[in-house]
Amino acid sequence: MSSYKVIYYNYRGRAEAIRFLLNYGGIEFEDFRFESEDDWPKYKPSMPYGKVPVLEIDGVKYSNTLAICAFLGKKFNLAGSNDLEELQIHTAAAFVYDLIDTVEDVLYYYKPSFTEEVYKKEVRKLIEETIPTSLQKFETIVAQNGGHFVNGKLSWADIYFTSIYEYIFGMFIWSNEKCDADFLEKNENLKKLYEKVRNIESIKKWIAKRPETNG
Amino acid sequence: MSSYKVIYYNYRGRAEAIRFLLNYGGIEFEDFRFESEDDWPKYKPSMPYGKVPVLEIDGVKYSNTLAICAFLGKKFNLAGSNDLEELQIHTAAAFVYDLIDTVEDVLYYYKPSFTEEVYKKEVRKLIEETIPTSLQKFETIVAQNGGHFVNGKLSWADIYFTSIYEYIFGMFIWSNEKCDADFLEKNENLKKLYEKVRNIESIKKWIAKRPETNG
Repeated sequence: MSSYKVIYYNYRGRAEAIRFLLNYGGIEFEDFRFESEDDWPKYKPSMPYGKVPVLEIDGVKYSNTLAICAFLGKKFNLAGSNDLEELQIHTAAAFVYDLIDTVEDVLYYYKPSFTEEVYKKEVRKLIEETIPTSLQKFETIVAQNGGHFVNGKLSWADIYFTSIYEYIFGMFIWSNEKCDADFLEKNENLKKLYEKVRNIESIKKWIAKRPETNG
Repeated sequence: MSSYKVIYYNYRGRAEAIRFLLNYGGIEFEDFRFESEDDWPKYKPSMPYGKVPVLEIDGVKYSNTLAICAFLGKKFNLAGSNDLEELQIHTAAAFVYDLIDTVEDVLYYYKPSFTEEVYKKEVRKLIEETIPTSLQKFETIVAQNGGHFVNGKLSWADIYFTSIYEYIFGMFIWSNEKCDADFLEKNENLKKLYEKVRNIESIKKWIAKRPETNG
């Protein structure tokens, strides 16, 4: 049997989708978390492409959330029943990936490059425009596809979205920014999907037992 | 036989990897380009997720370059010989995707949010730090893998990288920014790979006949 190890900060963040999927698939894994963010430079050189999350399988390190989730999704029969369905699942997940990228860009990467005033404007834009517009798009797609991103059945894109939706708020908490918007309020299909995924028995158990973290 | 249509601006940009792959696979396609950038709002509402490039297959629209390239890569036997190889190919492509995202962020998306001075600093950082650091990482990986991103053989990640490397310069031209750095100068394995892909007969023919565009 293969051994699995998730390597990431002590956050849900970008790694949580991988943890959700491993739990979904009933795979035991080592949940390795850096003791502190300051430890990262120590680990960075040994990570392929210098980034985390990393999933180590039998001692070999694999990187990038989208790539890892596509792999695990296929392994657990969450990647559609043909290549065109797999493409659609992949597409949905990529747009979720783009959204969280934008959230990180504003709240983290480009924050030091903005003036205080522009930063505030960019944060407002995230909350009032970027996130709601993306989610509304996702809502339409999920409404048209029987409550899931693709073809009326659970896929890894649904699980990826659910973990990333939580991470959006995690990112705001981590950055000490206030965000009390309930983005799912007006997106009932997306809200149902989010709750459905979190109530999958294996994922529910994981959520109940996972470490409490700040984002 | 299926019908294929690539929908994008009249640029190489993010669509060129799809055009490269379709040519590689010997697939005829309609190469639909908006007459002008101003036409985009007219098309946007009918695009899944409101973005291009889109690949239409038998009238159904599919979106996101990574997702489409993974699909075409699999179709043309460029996705590895097992699931772990496919994962590694996917990982490589995702990091190339992240790089071009950063280039677009600075030169386009966040440009209006930077002061003139910060913008100049960010552009310098792209040229002197971000792009060279990523490419050096890719160089190491390609050197370790027999001249390709994964396992010593051609994959869709190699083709995706080649088109995106060209697009980096396209993005600079499009933004009227000067970039005369030869990023491949010190990365000989990556340079060989870039040239090898562009010399694949089908891709070479496409490059010779494709429309001349500004990026």
